[in-house]
Amino acid sequence: MRVAVVAPSRSLPQEAAEEVEALARKAGVELVIDPRCFLAEGHFAGSDQARADAFVSAANDPSFDAIWFARGGYGACRILDRVLPQLGEAAEAKTYLGYSDGGYLLAALDRNGIGHSVHGSMLGDVLRDGGEKAIEQCLMFLSSGQAEEPAVVLNLAVLASLVATPYLPDLNGRTLIIEEVDEHLYAIDRMLFTAFSSGRLAGVKGLKLGRINMVPENDIDFGQTAEEIVRAHCACGEIPFLGHADVGHDVENKVVPWR
Amino acid sequence: MRVAVVAPSRSLPQEAAEEVEALARKAGVELVIDPRCFLAEGHFAGSDQARADAFVSAANDPSFDAIWFARGGYGACRILDRVLPQLGEAAEAKTYLGYSDGGYLLAALDRNGIGHSVHGSMLGDVLRDGGEKAIEQCLMFLSSGQAEEPAVVLNLAVLASLVATPYLPDLNGRTLIIEEVDEHLYAIDRMLFTAFSSGRLAGVKGLKLGRINMVPENDIDFGQTAEEIVRAHCACGEIPFLGHADVGHDVENKVVPWR
Repeated sequence: MRVAVVAPSRSLPQEAAEEVEALARKAGVELVIDPRCFLAEGHFAGSDQARADAFVSAANDPSFDAIWFARGGYGACRILDRVLPQLGEAAEAKTYLGYSDGGYLLAALDRNGIGHSVHGSMLGDVLRDGGEKAIEQCLMFLSSGQAEEPAVVLNLAVLASLVATPYLPDLNGRTLIIEEVDEHLYAIDRMLFTAFSSGRLAGVKGLKLGRINMVPENDIDFGQTAEEIVRAHCACGEIPFLGHADVGHDVENKVVPWR
Repeated sequence: MRVAVVAPSRSLPQEAAEEVEALARKAGVELVIDPRCFLAEGHFAGSDQARADAFVSAANDPSFDAIWFARGGYGACRILDRVLPQLGEAAEAKTYLGYSDGGYLLAALDRNGIGHSVHGSMLGDVLRDGGEKAIEQCLMFLSSGQAEEPAVVLNLAVLASLVATPYLPDLNGRTLIIEEVDEHLYAIDRMLFTAFSSGRLAGVKGLKLGRINMVPENDIDFGQTAEEIVRAHCACGEIPFLGHADVGHDVENKVVPWR
Protein backbone atom coordinates (compact mmCIF):
# COMPACT_ATOMS: atom_id res chain seq x y z
CA MET A 1 0.00 0.00 0.00
CA ARG A 2 1.66 3.18 -1.25
CA VAL A 3 0.01 6.37 -0.05
CA ALA A 4 0.57 9.97 -1.17
CA VAL A 5 -0.08 12.76 1.29
CA VAL A 6 -1.17 16.12 -0.14
CA ALA A 7 -2.58 19.26 1.51
CA PRO A 8 -5.61 20.74 -0.26
CA SER A 9 -6.36 23.10 2.67
CA ARG A 10 -3.95 24.23 5.41
CA SER A 11 -0.28 23.30 5.77
CA LEU A 12 0.92 20.28 7.66
CA PRO A 13 3.02 20.93 10.77
CA GLN A 14 6.42 19.23 10.41
CA GLU A 15 5.96 17.63 13.80
CA ALA A 16 2.70 15.95 12.69
CA ALA A 17 4.41 14.62 9.57
CA GLU A 18 7.20 13.03 11.61
CA GLU A 19 4.84 11.42 14.13
CA VAL A 20 2.65 9.94 11.39
CA GLU A 21 5.65 8.71 9.40
CA ALA A 22 6.82 6.76 12.45
CA LEU A 23 3.34 5.23 12.95
CA ALA A 24 3.12 4.35 9.23
CA ARG A 25 6.47 2.55 9.31
CA LYS A 26 5.20 0.44 12.21
CA ALA A 27 1.99 -0.33 10.29
CA GLY A 28 3.84 -1.24 7.09
CA VAL A 29 2.25 1.55 5.06
CA GLU A 30 4.54 3.38 2.63
CA LEU A 31 3.81 7.07 3.07
CA VAL A 32 5.07 9.68 0.58
CA ILE A 33 4.45 13.15 1.97
CA ASP A 34 4.50 15.74 -0.83
CA PRO A 35 6.86 18.53 0.28
CA ARG A 36 4.24 21.06 -0.88
CA CYS A 37 2.26 20.06 2.27
CA PHE A 38 4.63 22.37 4.16
CA LEU A 39 4.15 25.43 1.94
CA ALA A 40 2.45 28.41 3.53
CA GLU A 41 0.65 31.21 1.70
CA GLY A 42 -1.75 33.12 3.93
CA HIS A 43 -4.30 30.66 5.29
CA PHE A 44 -3.27 27.89 2.91
CA ALA A 45 -0.63 25.27 2.16
CA GLY A 46 0.55 27.29 -0.83
CA SER A 47 -1.40 29.02 -3.57
CA ASP A 48 -4.54 27.49 -5.05
CA GLN A 49 -2.47 26.53 -8.10
CA ALA A 50 0.25 24.88 -6.00
CA ARG A 51 -2.28 22.87 -3.97
CA ALA A 52 -4.18 21.84 -7.08
CA ASP A 53 -0.95 20.81 -8.84
CA ALA A 54 0.14 18.70 -5.87
CA PHE A 55 -3.22 16.96 -5.76
CA VAL A 56 -3.35 16.31 -9.50
CA SER A 57 0.20 14.98 -9.73
CA ALA A 58 -0.41 12.49 -6.90
CA ALA A 59 -3.85 11.48 -8.20
CA ASN A 60 -2.55 10.84 -11.69
CA ASP A 61 0.46 8.85 -10.50
CA PRO A 62 -0.34 5.13 -10.92
CA SER A 63 2.29 4.17 -8.33
CA PHE A 64 0.02 5.43 -5.53
CA ASP A 65 -2.91 3.37 -4.24
CA ALA A 66 -4.37 6.10 -2.09
CA ILE A 67 -4.26 9.82 -1.37
CA TRP A 68 -4.46 10.93 2.23
CA PHE A 69 -5.24 14.57 2.97
CA ALA A 70 -2.74 16.20 5.32
CA ARG A 71 -5.07 18.51 7.19
CA GLY A 72 -8.37 20.38 6.98
CA GLY A 73 -9.11 23.92 8.08
CA TYR A 74 -10.43 25.44 4.84
CA GLY A 75 -9.25 25.66 1.28
CA ALA A 76 -10.25 22.51 -0.62
CA CYS A 77 -13.31 24.14 -2.23
CA ARG A 78 -11.02 26.70 -3.88
CA ILE A 79 -9.21 24.07 -5.98
CA LEU A 80 -12.11 21.89 -7.19
CA ASP A 81 -12.38 23.62 -10.56
CA ARG A 82 -8.64 23.34 -11.15
CA VAL A 83 -8.41 19.68 -10.07
CA LEU A 84 -11.42 17.93 -11.61
CA PRO A 85 -10.75 18.50 -15.33
CA GLN A 86 -7.17 17.25 -14.99
CA LEU A 87 -7.79 13.85 -13.41
CA GLY A 88 -6.97 10.85 -15.58
CA GLU A 89 -7.31 7.08 -15.46
CA ALA A 90 -4.94 6.55 -12.54
CA ALA A 91 -7.04 8.90 -10.42
CA GLU A 92 -10.11 6.72 -10.93
CA ALA A 93 -8.55 3.67 -9.29
CA LYS A 94 -7.59 5.43 -6.08
CA THR A 95 -8.84 5.78 -2.53
CA TYR A 96 -9.16 9.35 -1.19
CA LEU A 97 -9.02 9.63 2.60
CA GLY A 98 -9.92 12.68 4.69
CA TYR A 99 -12.81 14.63 6.20
CA SER A 100 -13.88 18.05 7.43
CA ASP A 101 -12.74 20.61 4.83
CA GLY A 102 -11.42 17.66 2.79
CA GLY A 103 -15.08 16.74 2.33
CA TYR A 104 -15.26 19.20 -0.57
CA LEU A 105 -12.89 16.99 -2.55
CA LEU A 106 -14.45 13.73 -1.37
CA ALA A 107 -17.83 15.09 -2.48
CA ALA A 108 -16.71 16.40 -5.85
CA LEU A 109 -14.82 13.18 -6.63
CA ASP A 110 -17.78 11.03 -5.59
CA ARG A 111 -20.16 13.18 -7.59
CA ASN A 112 -18.02 12.64 -10.68
CA GLY A 113 -17.53 8.92 -10.09
CA ILE A 114 -13.77 9.31 -9.60
CA GLY A 115 -12.11 6.84 -7.21
CA HIS A 116 -13.33 5.89 -3.75
CA SER A 117 -14.00 8.61 -1.21
CA VAL A 118 -13.41 7.57 2.38
CA HIS A 119 -14.09 9.51 5.58
CA GLY A 120 -11.26 9.33 8.11
CA SER A 121 -8.87 11.38 10.21
CA MET A 122 -6.01 13.32 8.65
CA LEU A 123 -2.32 13.61 9.52
CA GLY A 124 -2.82 16.87 11.42
CA ASP A 125 -5.11 15.01 13.86
CA VAL A 126 -2.06 13.27 15.34
CA LEU A 127 -1.42 16.46 17.30
CA ARG A 128 -4.64 16.03 19.31
CA ASP A 129 -4.31 14.51 22.79
CA GLY A 130 -4.10 10.78 22.13
CA GLY A 131 -4.09 11.51 18.39
CA GLU A 132 -2.12 8.31 17.58
CA LYS A 133 -5.42 6.47 17.96
CA ALA A 134 -7.04 8.44 15.11
CA ILE A 135 -4.03 7.85 12.87
CA GLU A 136 -3.73 4.14 13.70
CA GLN A 137 -7.33 3.59 12.62
CA CYS A 138 -6.53 5.19 9.26
CA LEU A 139 -3.35 3.13 8.85
CA MET A 140 -5.31 -0.02 9.73
CA PHE A 141 -7.84 0.88 7.05
CA LEU A 142 -5.12 1.62 4.49
CA SER A 143 -3.37 -1.68 5.11
CA SER A 144 -6.36 -3.99 5.67
CA GLY A 145 -9.50 -2.18 4.43
CA GLN A 146 -11.02 -2.46 7.91
CA ALA A 147 -13.75 0.17 8.32
CA GLU A 148 -17.27 0.98 9.49
CA GLU A 149 -20.48 0.49 7.48
CA PRO A 150 -20.43 2.61 4.32
CA ALA A 151 -22.20 6.01 4.24
CA VAL A 152 -21.70 9.51 2.90
CA VAL A 153 -20.07 11.48 5.74
CA LEU A 154 -19.91 15.25 5.59
CA ASN A 155 -19.18 18.04 7.97
CA LEU A 156 -22.47 19.94 8.24
CA ALA A 157 -20.95 23.28 7.20
CA VAL A 158 -19.45 21.62 4.14
CA LEU A 159 -22.77 19.95 3.30
CA ALA A 160 -24.69 23.22 3.71
CA SER A 161 -22.21 25.07 1.53
CA LEU A 162 -22.36 22.31 -1.13
CA VAL A 163 -26.10 21.80 -1.61
CA ALA A 164 -26.38 24.77 -3.97
CA THR A 165 -23.37 23.75 -6.04
CA PRO A 166 -22.57 21.20 -8.76
CA TYR A 167 -20.27 19.30 -6.36
CA LEU A 168 -22.91 17.68 -4.14
CA PRO A 169 -22.79 13.87 -4.37
CA ASP A 170 -25.86 12.00 -5.54
CA LEU A 171 -27.37 11.14 -2.15
CA ASN A 172 -30.23 9.07 -3.47
CA GLY A 173 -30.60 5.80 -1.55
CA ARG A 174 -27.53 6.47 0.60
CA THR A 175 -27.09 6.96 4.33
CA LEU A 176 -25.88 10.46 5.22
CA ILE A 177 -23.79 11.09 8.33
CA ILE A 178 -23.17 14.66 9.49
CA GLU A 179 -20.76 15.94 12.13
CA GLU A 180 -19.71 19.39 13.28
CA VAL A 181 -17.25 21.25 15.47
CA ASP A 182 -17.09 24.73 16.93
CA GLU A 183 -20.45 25.99 15.65
CA HIS A 184 -23.26 27.58 17.63
CA LEU A 185 -26.53 25.63 17.84
CA TYR A 186 -28.33 28.39 15.92
CA ALA A 187 -25.77 27.98 13.12
CA ILE A 188 -26.38 24.23 13.13
CA ASP A 189 -30.11 24.86 12.84
CA ARG A 190 -29.48 27.34 10.01
CA MET A 191 -27.25 24.90 8.11
CA LEU A 192 -29.90 22.21 8.44
CA PHE A 193 -32.51 24.69 7.17
CA THR A 194 -30.34 25.20 4.07
CA ALA A 195 -29.65 21.51 3.51
CA PHE A 196 -33.27 20.45 3.94
CA SER A 197 -34.84 23.43 2.12
CA SER A 198 -32.64 22.79 -0.90
CA GLY A 199 -34.61 19.68 -1.79
CA ARG A 200 -31.26 17.99 -2.45
CA LEU A 201 -31.63 15.57 0.48
CA ALA A 202 -34.75 14.01 -1.04
CA GLY A 203 -34.10 10.30 -1.51
CA VAL A 204 -31.58 10.03 1.34
CA LYS A 205 -32.09 6.64 2.94
CA GLY A 206 -31.58 8.00 6.42
CA LEU A 207 -29.52 10.44 8.45
CA LYS A 208 -27.10 9.56 11.23
CA LEU A 209 -25.63 12.07 13.63
CA GLY A 210 -21.90 12.09 14.26
CA ARG A 211 -20.54 14.16 17.09
CA ILE A 212 -21.27 17.87 17.41
CA ASN A 213 -18.16 18.92 19.31
CA MET A 214 -17.14 22.11 21.09
CA VAL A 215 -20.39 24.05 20.65
CA PRO A 216 -19.51 27.61 21.77
CA GLU A 217 -21.61 29.11 24.52
CA ASN A 218 -24.06 31.72 23.27
CA ASP A 219 -25.50 34.69 25.20
CA ILE A 220 -28.80 32.80 25.16
CA ASP A 221 -29.57 29.09 25.50
CA PHE A 222 -30.92 27.69 22.23
CA GLY A 223 -33.61 25.64 23.95
CA GLN A 224 -32.98 22.44 22.00
CA THR A 225 -30.02 20.04 21.98
CA ALA A 226 -28.17 19.35 18.74
CA GLU A 227 -29.88 15.97 18.53
CA GLU A 228 -33.32 17.52 19.03
CA ILE A 229 -32.57 20.04 16.29
CA VAL A 230 -31.47 17.30 13.87
CA ARG A 231 -34.45 15.09 14.74
CA ALA A 232 -36.87 17.98 14.15
CA HIS A 233 -35.43 18.67 10.69
CA CYS A 234 -35.51 14.96 9.81
CA ALA A 235 -39.16 14.67 10.91
CA CYS A 236 -40.13 17.77 8.97
CA GLY A 237 -38.15 16.70 5.90
CA GLU A 238 -39.42 13.11 6.09
CA ILE A 239 -35.94 11.59 6.24
CA PRO A 240 -35.52 8.76 8.77
CA PHE A 241 -33.26 9.59 11.71
CA LEU A 242 -31.07 6.51 12.14
CA GLY A 243 -29.30 7.36 15.40
CA HIS A 244 -25.66 8.10 16.10
CA ALA A 245 -22.44 7.51 14.17
CA ASP A 246 -18.97 7.25 15.68
CA VAL A 247 -17.36 10.10 13.74
CA GLY A 248 -16.33 13.64 14.56
CA HIS A 249 -13.45 16.06 15.11
CA ASP A 250 -11.76 13.91 17.75
CA VAL A 251 -9.45 10.90 18.16
CA GLU A 252 -12.37 8.43 18.21
CA ASN A 253 -13.29 9.44 14.64
CA LYS A 254 -13.82 6.19 12.68
CA VAL A 255 -13.07 5.36 9.05
CA VAL A 256 -16.22 5.22 6.90
CA PRO A 257 -16.08 4.42 3.17
CA TRP A 258 -18.54 6.49 1.13
CA ARG A 259 -19.79 3.61 -1.01
CA MET B 1 -47.78 56.22 8.76
CA ARG B 2 -48.89 53.39 11.03
CA VAL B 3 -46.19 50.80 11.65
CA ALA B 4 -46.49 47.38 13.29
CA VAL B 5 -43.43 45.93 15.03
CA VAL B 6 -43.10 42.14 15.13
CA ALA B 7 -40.21 39.85 16.08
CA PRO B 8 -39.52 36.99 13.63
CA SER B 9 -36.19 36.14 15.30
CA ARG B 10 -35.05 37.04 18.84
CA SER B 11 -37.05 38.95 21.48
CA LEU B 12 -37.00 42.69 21.82
CA PRO B 13 -35.52 44.09 25.04
CA GLN B 14 -38.14 46.26 26.84
CA GLU B 15 -35.60 49.04 27.10
CA ALA B 16 -35.11 49.14 23.31
CA ALA B 17 -38.88 49.29 22.80
CA GLU B 18 -39.20 52.29 25.10
CA GLU B 19 -36.33 54.21 23.53
CA VAL B 20 -37.65 53.66 20.00
CA GLU B 21 -41.22 54.57 21.02
CA ALA B 22 -39.96 57.91 22.29
CA LEU B 23 -38.03 58.55 19.05
CA ALA B 24 -41.08 57.55 16.96
CA ARG B 25 -43.34 60.00 18.82
CA LYS B 26 -40.90 62.80 18.04
CA ALA B 27 -40.84 61.75 14.37
CA GLY B 28 -44.63 61.53 14.12
CA VAL B 29 -44.62 57.82 13.30
CA GLU B 30 -47.35 55.73 14.97
CA LEU B 31 -45.65 52.59 16.26
CA VAL B 32 -47.64 49.56 17.44
CA ILE B 33 -45.30 47.06 19.07
CA ASP B 34 -46.88 43.60 19.16
CA PRO B 35 -46.58 42.33 22.75
CA ARG B 36 -45.39 38.99 21.36
CA CYS B 37 -42.07 40.75 20.61
CA PHE B 38 -41.29 40.26 24.32
CA LEU B 39 -41.99 36.52 24.41
CA ALA B 40 -39.00 34.27 25.07
CA GLU B 41 -38.74 30.60 24.19
CA GLY B 42 -35.17 29.36 24.04
CA HIS B 43 -33.31 31.41 21.45
CA PHE B 44 -36.48 32.96 20.03
CA ALA B 45 -39.22 35.54 20.65
CA GLY B 46 -41.72 32.75 21.30
CA SER B 47 -42.37 29.52 19.41
CA ASP B 48 -42.19 29.36 15.62
CA GLN B 49 -46.00 29.31 15.60
CA ALA B 50 -46.28 32.38 17.85
CA ARG B 51 -43.78 34.35 15.74
CA ALA B 52 -45.47 33.33 12.51
CA ASP B 53 -48.91 34.24 13.90
CA ALA B 54 -47.70 37.67 15.01
CA PHE B 55 -46.20 38.34 11.60
CA VAL B 56 -49.26 37.16 9.68
CA SER B 57 -51.75 39.10 11.80
CA ALA B 58 -49.82 42.34 11.33
CA ALA B 59 -49.19 41.74 7.62
CA ASN B 60 -52.85 41.02 6.95
CA ASP B 61 -54.07 44.05 8.93
CA PRO B 62 -54.93 46.82 6.41
CA SER B 63 -54.57 49.50 9.11
CA PHE B 64 -50.77 49.12 9.02
CA ASP B 65 -48.67 50.70 6.27
CA ALA B 66 -45.45 48.97 7.23
CA ILE B 67 -43.99 46.16 9.30
CA TRP B 68 -40.73 46.81 11.11
CA PHE B 69 -38.77 43.84 12.44
CA ALA B 70 -37.88 44.16 16.12
CA ARG B 71 -34.52 42.45 16.07
CA GLY B 72 -32.38 39.89 14.22
CA GLY B 73 -30.19 37.19 15.70
CA TYR B 74 -31.62 34.07 14.00
CA GLY B 75 -35.06 32.59 13.63
CA ALA B 76 -36.82 34.13 10.61
CA CYS B 77 -35.99 31.22 8.29
CA ARG B 78 -37.90 28.89 10.60
CA ILE B 79 -41.24 30.65 9.98
CA LEU B 80 -41.16 31.18 6.20
CA ASP B 81 -43.26 28.12 5.41
CA ARG B 82 -45.85 29.06 8.02
CA VAL B 83 -46.06 32.71 6.97
CA LEU B 84 -46.06 32.74 3.17
CA PRO B 85 -49.23 30.74 2.45
CA GLN B 86 -51.26 32.88 4.86
CA LEU B 87 -50.54 36.33 3.47
CA GLY B 88 -53.51 38.13 1.88
CA GLU B 89 -54.17 41.31 -0.07
CA ALA B 90 -53.32 43.69 2.77
CA ALA B 91 -49.86 42.10 3.03
CA GLU B 92 -49.12 42.95 -0.60
CA ALA B 93 -49.49 46.70 -0.08
CA LYS B 94 -47.01 46.91 2.76
CA THR B 95 -43.42 47.90 3.36
CA TYR B 96 -41.25 45.39 5.28
CA LEU B 97 -38.24 46.91 7.04
CA GLY B 98 -35.31 45.04 8.58
CA TYR B 99 -32.01 43.32 7.77
CA SER B 100 -29.56 40.68 8.98
CA ASP B 101 -31.60 37.61 9.99
CA GLY B 102 -34.71 39.53 8.87
CA GLY B 103 -33.30 39.17 5.37
CA TYR B 104 -34.85 35.69 5.17
CA LEU B 105 -38.30 37.29 5.24
CA LEU B 106 -37.34 40.20 2.98
CA ALA B 107 -36.01 37.66 0.48
CA ALA B 108 -38.98 35.31 0.60
CA LEU B 109 -41.47 38.19 0.33
CA ASP B 110 -39.57 39.73 -2.58
CA ARG B 111 -39.27 36.37 -4.31
CA ASN B 112 -43.03 35.98 -4.09
CA GLY B 113 -43.79 39.56 -5.16
CA ILE B 114 -45.38 40.41 -1.81
CA GLY B 115 -45.04 44.03 -0.63
CA HIS B 116 -41.87 46.09 -0.65
CA SER B 117 -38.78 44.76 1.10
CA VAL B 118 -36.53 47.44 2.55
CA HIS B 119 -33.11 47.07 4.18
CA GLY B 120 -32.73 49.10 7.36
CA SER B 121 -31.85 48.92 11.04
CA MET B 122 -34.18 47.29 13.56
CA LEU B 123 -35.44 48.41 16.96
CA GLY B 124 -32.83 46.37 18.83
CA ASP B 125 -30.11 48.46 17.16
CA VAL B 126 -31.07 51.41 19.38
CA LEU B 127 -29.04 49.75 22.14
CA ARG B 128 -25.78 50.20 20.21
CA ASP B 129 -23.59 53.16 21.19
CA GLY B 130 -25.21 56.09 19.38
CA GLY B 131 -28.00 53.77 18.21
CA GLU B 132 -30.54 56.63 17.99
CA LYS B 133 -28.89 57.52 14.70
CA ALA B 134 -29.72 54.14 13.14
CA ILE B 135 -33.33 54.40 14.35
CA GLU B 136 -33.80 58.00 13.24
CA GLN B 137 -32.80 57.05 9.70
CA CYS B 138 -35.49 54.37 9.70
CA LEU B 139 -38.11 56.75 11.11
CA MET B 140 -37.15 59.33 8.49
CA PHE B 141 -37.63 56.70 5.80
CA LEU B 142 -40.97 55.59 7.27
CA SER B 143 -42.30 59.15 7.38
CA SER B 144 -40.79 60.60 4.21
CA GLY B 145 -39.59 57.69 2.04
CA GLN B 146 -36.04 59.13 2.13
CA ALA B 147 -33.54 56.36 1.32
CA GLU B 148 -30.45 55.32 -0.65
CA GLU B 149 -30.38 53.99 -4.21
CA PRO B 150 -32.37 50.73 -4.50
CA ALA B 151 -30.59 47.35 -4.39
CA VAL B 152 -31.04 43.88 -2.94
CA VAL B 153 -29.19 43.92 0.39
CA LEU B 154 -28.41 40.67 2.16
CA ASN B 155 -26.20 39.56 4.98
CA LEU B 156 -23.69 37.22 3.34
CA ALA B 157 -24.50 34.29 5.65
CA VAL B 158 -28.18 34.70 4.84
CA LEU B 159 -27.44 34.89 1.11
CA ALA B 160 -25.23 31.78 1.25
CA SER B 161 -27.85 29.85 3.17
CA LEU B 162 -30.57 30.96 0.72
CA VAL B 163 -29.02 30.22 -2.69
CA ALA B 164 -29.96 26.54 -2.51
CA THR B 165 -33.53 27.26 -1.41
CA PRO B 166 -36.79 28.39 -3.04
CA TYR B 167 -36.65 31.68 -1.11
CA LEU B 168 -33.84 33.38 -3.04
CA PRO B 169 -35.07 36.57 -4.77
CA ASP B 170 -34.80 36.84 -8.52
CA LEU B 171 -31.50 38.73 -8.75
CA ASN B 172 -31.48 39.16 -12.49
CA GLY B 173 -30.61 42.72 -13.50
CA ARG B 174 -30.41 43.93 -9.89
CA THR B 175 -27.58 45.31 -7.81
CA LEU B 176 -26.64 43.05 -4.90
CA ILE B 177 -25.17 44.45 -1.69
CA ILE B 178 -23.66 42.11 0.89
CA GLU B 179 -22.58 42.83 4.45
CA GLU B 180 -21.36 40.69 7.32
CA VAL B 181 -20.50 40.75 11.00
CA ASP B 182 -18.55 38.47 13.31
CA GLU B 183 -17.38 35.96 10.70
CA HIS B 184 -13.83 34.78 9.98
CA LEU B 185 -12.38 35.69 6.59
CA TYR B 186 -12.20 32.00 5.63
CA ALA B 187 -15.92 31.74 6.35
CA ILE B 188 -16.55 34.79 4.16
CA ASP B 189 -14.56 33.15 1.38
CA ARG B 190 -16.52 29.91 1.86
CA MET B 191 -19.88 31.70 1.74
CA LEU B 192 -18.84 33.46 -1.45
CA PHE B 193 -17.77 30.09 -2.91
CA THR B 194 -21.29 28.82 -2.20
CA ALA B 195 -23.07 31.88 -3.55
CA PHE B 196 -21.01 32.06 -6.74
CA SER B 197 -20.82 28.27 -7.36
CA SER B 198 -24.60 28.01 -7.13
CA GLY B 199 -25.02 29.76 -10.46
CA ARG B 200 -27.81 31.76 -8.83
CA LEU B 201 -25.91 35.06 -9.05
CA ALA B 202 -25.80 34.91 -12.85
CA GLY B 203 -27.49 38.02 -14.21
CA VAL B 204 -26.69 40.18 -11.18
CA LYS B 205 -25.99 43.68 -12.49
CA GLY B 206 -23.19 44.23 -10.03
CA LEU B 207 -22.08 43.60 -6.48
CA LYS B 208 -21.44 46.24 -3.83
CA LEU B 209 -19.69 45.56 -0.56
CA GLY B 210 -21.25 46.80 2.66
CA ARG B 211 -19.23 46.69 5.85
CA ILE B 212 -17.61 43.47 7.06
CA ASN B 213 -17.55 44.25 10.78
CA MET B 214 -15.90 42.59 13.76
CA VAL B 215 -13.94 39.91 11.89
CA PRO B 216 -12.63 37.60 14.66
CA GLU B 217 -8.90 37.03 14.78
CA ASN B 218 -7.86 33.59 13.52
CA ASP B 219 -4.77 31.57 14.50
CA ILE B 220 -3.48 32.33 11.00
CA ASP B 221 -3.75 35.44 8.84
CA PHE B 222 -5.94 34.79 5.80
CA GLY B 223 -3.62 36.63 3.44
CA GLN B 224 -6.34 38.65 1.71
CA THR B 225 -8.60 41.44 2.97
CA ALA B 226 -12.37 41.05 2.81
CA GLU B 227 -12.46 43.38 -0.18
CA GLU B 228 -9.76 41.42 -2.00
CA ILE B 229 -11.71 38.21 -1.37
CA VAL B 230 -14.93 39.73 -2.72
CA ARG B 231 -13.17 41.25 -5.75
CA ALA B 232 -11.56 37.89 -6.58
CA HIS B 233 -14.92 36.09 -6.54
CA CYS B 234 -16.52 38.83 -8.64
CA ALA B 235 -13.72 38.65 -11.21
CA CYS B 236 -13.92 34.87 -11.38
CA GLY B 237 -17.74 34.88 -11.51
CA GLU B 238 -17.79 37.72 -14.07
CA ILE B 239 -19.98 39.98 -11.94
CA PRO B 240 -18.94 43.65 -11.88
CA PHE B 241 -17.65 44.84 -8.51
CA LEU B 242 -19.31 48.23 -8.01
CA GLY B 243 -17.49 49.44 -4.89
CA HIS B 244 -18.75 50.07 -1.38
CA ALA B 245 -22.20 50.51 0.11
CA ASP B 246 -22.98 52.33 3.36
CA VAL B 247 -24.67 49.41 5.15
CA GLY B 248 -23.70 47.04 7.93
CA HIS B 249 -24.24 45.98 11.50
CA ASP B 250 -23.64 49.46 12.96
CA VAL B 251 -25.34 52.79 13.58
CA GLU B 252 -24.33 54.17 10.16
CA ASN B 253 -26.39 51.45 8.44
CA LYS B 254 -28.48 53.19 5.75
CA VAL B 255 -32.00 52.47 4.50
CA VAL B 256 -32.00 50.78 1.07
CA PRO B 257 -35.23 49.79 -0.70
CA TRP B 258 -34.96 46.48 -2.51
CA ARG B 259 -36.67 47.60 -5.70
